[in-house]
Amino acid sequence: MKDYSPPTAGRAKKLRLDFNENTIGCSPKVIDALKKITSNNLAVYPEYGLFKKILKEYVGVSEEEIFISNGSDDGIKTIIDTFMEKGEEIIIPSPTFAMFKFYASIVEAKITEILYNEDLSFPTKKVLELINKNTKIVVMVNPNNPTGTSIRKEDIIKITKKAQENEAIVLIDEAYFEFYGESCIDLIFEYDNVFVTRTFSKAFGLAGLRLGYTISNKTNISALAKEGSPYGVNTLALIAGEAALSDVEFVKNYANEILENKKYVEKELESMGLDTFPTSANFILTKFGNKCDKVANSLKEKGILVRNRTKDPLLNGCIRITIGTKEQCEQLLEELKLILSKK
Amino acid sequence: MKDYSPPTAGRAKKLRLDFNENTIGCSPKVIDALKKITSNNLAVYPEYGLFKKILKEYVGVSEEEIFISNGSDDGIKTIIDTFMEKGEEIIIPSPTFAMFKFYASIVEAKITEILYNEDLSFPTKKVLELINKNTKIVVMVNPNNPTGTSIRKEDIIKITKKAQENEAIVLIDEAYFEFYGESCIDLIFEYDNVFVTRTFSKAFGLAGLRLGYTISNKTNISALAKEGSPYGVNTLALIAGEAALSDVEFVKNYANEILENKKYVEKELESMGLDTFPTSANFILTKFGNKCDKVANSLKEKGILVRNRTKDPLLNGCIRITIGTKEQCEQLLEELKLILSKK
Repeated sequence: MKDYSPPTAGRAKKLRLDFNENTIGCSPKVIDALKKITSNNLAVYPEYGLFKKILKEYVGVSEEEIFISNGSDDGIKTIIDTFMEKGEEIIIPSPTFAMFKFYASIVEAKITEILYNEDLSFPTKKVLELINKNTKIVVMVNPNNPTGTSIRKEDIIKITKKAQENEAIVLIDEAYFEFYGESCIDLIFEYDNVFVTRTFSKAFGLAGLRLGYTISNKTNISALAKEGSPYGVNTLALIAGEAALSDVEFVKNYANEILENKKYVEKELESMGLDTFPTSANFILTKFGNKCDKVANSLKEKGILVRNRTKDPLLNGCIRITIGTKEQCEQLLEELKLILSKK
Repeated sequence: MKDYSPPTAGRAKKLRLDFNENTIGCSPKVIDALKKITSNNLAVYPEYGLFKKILKEYVGVSEEEIFISNGSDDGIKTIIDTFMEKGEEIIIPSPTFAMFKFYASIVEAKITEILYNEDLSFPTKKVLELINKNTKIVVMVNPNNPTGTSIRKEDIIKITKKAQENEAIVLIDEAYFEFYGESCIDLIFEYDNVFVTRTFSKAFGLAGLRLGYTISNKTNISALAKEGSPYGVNTLALIAGEAALSDVEFVKNYANEILENKKYVEKELESMGLDTFPTSANFILTKFGNKCDKVANSLKEKGILVRNRTKDPLLNGCIRITIGTKEQCEQLLEELKLILSKK
């Protein structure tokens, strides 16, 4: 197994359309709150109480149904560490976020990667057929990264039921919830095998602070708490999270703006003769065919970062582009036109 | 196994002499640096480069010999997760920091807790006798919490050699290094089974930020990197750590002040007829006999937090008290005198 080295060095000063982060940053209320910190805040071990009180209102569950984690990938790791033994199976519809496979490899799980359908729709039928008595976790990223695919709720329920019959859990990652708007959190009240992970790294603009959470029933959350570090999330992330949740309007407006801009970029790309896949998140998957390397490198030279996904299964010829503000989108489109006009 | 619930809620406004934190907080340079953060800092995934460059100078090793972790307990967890399989033995001289046992339990290690000697000196002979072919990790906390015991370097080397012969590693925790002044980091150049963990939570006053590191040879550090999260440490912890290391003088002065105050408190306690154990860290272990509960509770009512350790093996009748500033020490002693004068 290889060390996972994220290609993130030296990004701070670029136009970052490569990691699906919030491109304008967090609510100003977060910065205000952080400017008030004292050395006293920093000297004391973190306390989760107040943040949990505020978060439960945002999510609509009780505090006992929330597990706070050091970014959502720490939540994913804790779920895998808690529920998987060596040799048990995790089903990962791919291509998707790399960390499911990474953490499953560490516990030496049997990793079954199954491809999305050719049209990038979710392979519900194939997943249902695969679930068996050795299956322990079924991953559903909704909407998925990098395909942008959302999954119909009735399909999620079918899979959840089949998993439950086989004593497997479903791990539903909602990292892009704030852009998509639909959630499966209500399923935790009906099914005892549902875990939903979310993050403050995307729409909330707090990727640098490592703040995520997992929602499930009380028994499951209590099991996660036994495995996770009691001090895993730092004080400033909690303070920032509290401030961010005091200004949910900011994130809603941002998400709406991004969805508008996504339509605009799709239309513009189309008029340039480029195909895009419909996505339910804050990014666009665009077909550049054999020009992927050239386009990605030329954009980088201009200070614009995008993610070349042409080596991913099903995504041959595709680049993933995070949608930013109108101005950022215009900057991108302008450079793209220049690059594509050159022979 | 029980969920580990740290008794840390509601501590921010008290005189905190219970967790061996820095009682005056971090260098003002840290606060200055954090006040300059922008939403851009927060939106981007963490980058470790600059912090590692500064840290390697402080520690005196190369970047490839450092593993950065989300607090030192994340480093401890990563070492255990990387090198232990179910059923393999970890030797933990006790009483000590709870997290070794906690994380070893999670991987279902065979946990051999061996008592410190009656005089609270390190049980070198017993540890040497115990190491066997099934031993995978030997823990040495130097100086130890809560006993305050330091270990003679020649004893550490004996144990390291015996461990090496048995293909076991030694995990030397130096959380209190800045108060003790002696380190075993040089052993990584001579022995391939040495791991040293350290933290910014104690002398540096950054417990709230979760910043720690592990030192070992390049091969070992590379193995840890394969197990750990690539984004485990948050951006503000890195910025704070950089600023803290730009003002090492602050920590040196603080440590010197604390060592002076420790002598003062020891003398005062002695003059009150109370026995103390000599410690090599920023706390004092004091014998209150059957008055422990009364003393700890009465202090708490006065807003002074200490840790009652009377239920720990060997520490019957003992309270652990973090040493603070001269004024804080005087406040403590004054209240103690009042409490003990009451029948």
